[in-house]
Amino acid sequence: MNAPATKVTPISGFPELLPAERLLELHFIDVIREVFELHGFAPLETRAVEPVERLLGKGGDADKEIYGISRLAGDDSGKDAALGLHFDLTVPFARYVLENAGRLAFPFRRYQIQKVWRGERPQEGRFREFTQADIDVVDVGELAPHFEAEMPLVIAEAFRRLPVGEFRIQVNNRKVPEGFYLGIGLSDVVGTLRIVDRLARFGADKVTAMLLESGATEEQARQVLALASISSTDLSFVDAVRALGVQHPTLDEGLDALAAVIAVGMEQAPGVLVADLQIARGLDYYTGTVYETQLVGSESWGSVCSGGRYDSLATDGRTTYPGVGISIGLSRLVHLLVTKRGLTATRSTPAAVLVAVVDEETREASRRVAAALRGRGIPCEVAPSAAKFGKQIRYADRRGIPFVWFPGAGEGVDQVKDIRSGEQVDADAQTWQCPPEDLHPAVVTP
Amino acid sequence: MNAPATKVTPISGFPELLPAERLLELHFIDVIREVFELHGFAPLETRAVEPVERLLGKGGDADKEIYGISRLAGDDSGKDAALGLHFDLTVPFARYVLENAGRLAFPFRRYQIQKVWRGERPQEGRFREFTQADIDVVDVGELAPHFEAEMPLVIAEAFRRLPVGEFRIQVNNRKVPEGFYLGIGLSDVVGTLRIVDRLARFGADKVTAMLLESGATEEQARQVLALASISSTDLSFVDAVRALGVQHPTLDEGLDALAAVIAVGMEQAPGVLVADLQIARGLDYYTGTVYETQLVGSESWGSVCSGGRYDSLATDGRTTYPGVGISIGLSRLVHLLVTKRGLTATRSTPAAVLVAVVDEETREASRRVAAALRGRGIPCEVAPSAAKFGKQIRYADRRGIPFVWFPGAGEGVDQVKDIRSGEQVDADAQTWQCPPEDLHPAVVTP
Repeated sequence: MNAPATKVTPISGFPELLPAERLLELHFIDVIREVFELHGFAPLETRAVEPVERLLGKGGDADKEIYGISRLAGDDSGKDAALGLHFDLTVPFARYVLENAGRLAFPFRRYQIQKVWRGERPQEGRFREFTQADIDVVDVGELAPHFEAEMPLVIAEAFRRLPVGEFRIQVNNRKVPEGFYLGIGLSDVVGTLRIVDRLARFGADKVTAMLLESGATEEQARQVLALASISSTDLSFVDAVRALGVQHPTLDEGLDALAAVIAVGMEQAPGVLVADLQIARGLDYYTGTVYETQLVGSESWGSVCSGGRYDSLATDGRTTYPGVGISIGLSRLVHLLVTKRGLTATRSTPAAVLVAVVDEETREASRRVAAALRGRGIPCEVAPSAAKFGKQIRYADRRGIPFVWFPGAGEGVDQVKDIRSGEQVDADAQTWQCPPEDLHPAVVTP
Repeated sequence: MNAPATKVTPISGFPELLPAERLLELHFIDVIREVFELHGFAPLETRAVEPVERLLGKGGDADKEIYGISRLAGDDSGKDAALGLHFDLTVPFARYVLENAGRLAFPFRRYQIQKVWRGERPQEGRFREFTQADIDVVDVGELAPHFEAEMPLVIAEAFRRLPVGEFRIQVNNRKVPEGFYLGIGLSDVVGTLRIVDRLARFGADKVTAMLLESGATEEQARQVLALASISSTDLSFVDAVRALGVQHPTLDEGLDALAAVIAVGMEQAPGVLVADLQIARGLDYYTGTVYETQLVGSESWGSVCSGGRYDSLATDGRTTYPGVGISIGLSRLVHLLVTKRGLTATRSTPAAVLVAVVDEETREASRRVAAALRGRGIPCEVAPSAAKFGKQIRYADRRGIPFVWFPGAGEGVDQVKDIRSGEQVDADAQTWQCPPEDLHPAVVTP
């Protein structure tokens, strides 16, 4: 039963973290989860797979390549629908709502922190397997607009508790460009949005060329770019759009909705929400408000948290469940903070204390010390062998464990050593206070 | 962009939980994770996929059917190795250790709580997608035997903090049956183990018939069953085996190792560890100590936590990393406790308080109350609409939210109502104490 000695190599696009990095990622997840729960979002986990036909046509084709799954040994063909791994958490959530509508209370608020898979070409910070952290609210038939302001403000609260620095959540409403394009005589709204979505990446000249190529006149292209250039952290964007002189009822509707979101943001988190009229969210299923998020100083990373309102994603043909949600690209965010900003965890294990073993005969005494510390919530390990104390201290040091505990072993009193300062003091496992900042690994910036 | 009105039906073997059930499962995960971290296991997450060739031959063929994955749009053929979803967390962990050996500190302790996939026929409590919670320790070259006693005792500590009732962790050492079978002249050890593994399911008569069919004599079959019938929570199993009169050096080795594990268990958790000589763990990669776990009174559920020692799973041909680990079948455990024992959560949302909205004009006042409560760690929601208070109370009641907060809205003082007792009192969001037992959803047994 020996394993074959095949060479072990990473799989491109399927990154894995070292223990200290995973501790850092878990810290992010814990903070995000705490904020989501403080806001009354219920936890949910959906299966990893959906029928392929449900994934197709919702952005899950050209943009977000689907992984199909099949039993290697079995013959599933014909019996069941073909299955694929989900590429986001919104499409599965919409399906879950339809499937469980009779057992859920609406409006239904849920959060979901899970892996998703996309067969895209792997790039820096773009993976084939990654974790997203989503919140959504859905209701039956109608969804109150105040939820559209709430979503980004919950994210702002989570981000303020995380070492991500300054950030901006850009908000747009698809009805603004839609009404504007129709108002200037461009009827291919989706095609135009798709081109404008590339503005940040390709720049104005390239996008102008693409617009002209798609059939727009020079004046139309100029107007499209003029609209996309508007942004403000207050309500001045409304006048700036009006000044372009375009009229359309859908444009009015979009401006009103966007102004309502920004107004709430100005009250609750001044400067965090930005009306940014070039945000479009590509080929997705959004129908109204859309969000993207930039870390200030790291705009080249692209959006680390995106979402929007979707009015017709969850429908069984009779009843529609409109929703709004936002999703943190967690793996991407953590990867970039670790590799570009040097974020790290203070140690590679949860253990705050290593209990030394004097000799194998007294291992049980060391274990009792550890049990006493654990009973008081202090994570610890017992040394793996009764090696020389110098070696046991090196064991702790290599993992960043700050304290080594020396059991008195029958005769003397116990002592604990802070291996960073070298300070060693008498201690009792029933009463010793671990400094709060050392109890759990912390995330530190360089 | 309307979604197709396809019928939404569950996928057999891919269960999903309702929000209250997921809160219950998360409580289990939180408790398990806390105990794992108290014992200094570092968190790890491996990718969901492995090269298919690494999954094959490690129990991942006949027993645990593999799901292959492939990009629907792409042409992966030829370029990369075929990929499959992992069927457990041990095989990926062994591969991770080989891949990162130079960056890990040994002995390396890690925990991992993740989904796995098996294409087996779905049955009650047997799923195609489920979550496992694993701990393992690996070392380089040699692994100290005391870790074999530690693994089940960590699980015992986690289970004692969970509403699972009484439980027994059955321990065996594969060298005991191996040496015993060789000692009575049965050379097909794996084949015999595989038959004995079915004892609990098929009974002694059927297993005897299978042994005879496999070429054993009646005396050999009698001895095999005699060994399998031995169990004890103390060291008396050693004499019981000796009384069968079989001699073999591997048997001696196995009995010594098993006695060492049980002796530590007798000291630290009397009655929890049982030497049970019929435990075999089927076709797996275990080479020494093996574990299974039964909930007392629910033995028909089968094992809810299993594992063992593996000496040659992680090897690159030059260096071997022997390990020992144990894995809680979390989805299975939670499913059975919910459906068979009626475990449930006290509410379907983390929110402890619903802040009522007097009218849409004062929504911001309600939001400020919610922000103050959240700032003090009290999860809450703001009512979705300024409906009549009776309707807002029903909103809370349907979700099991215990408190409704009525903002004074300019004139009067705020009040909070316990909707279970009907008691309503004056309150201040800066000072109100939420009863600790109501702060978070609790798991309750009927």
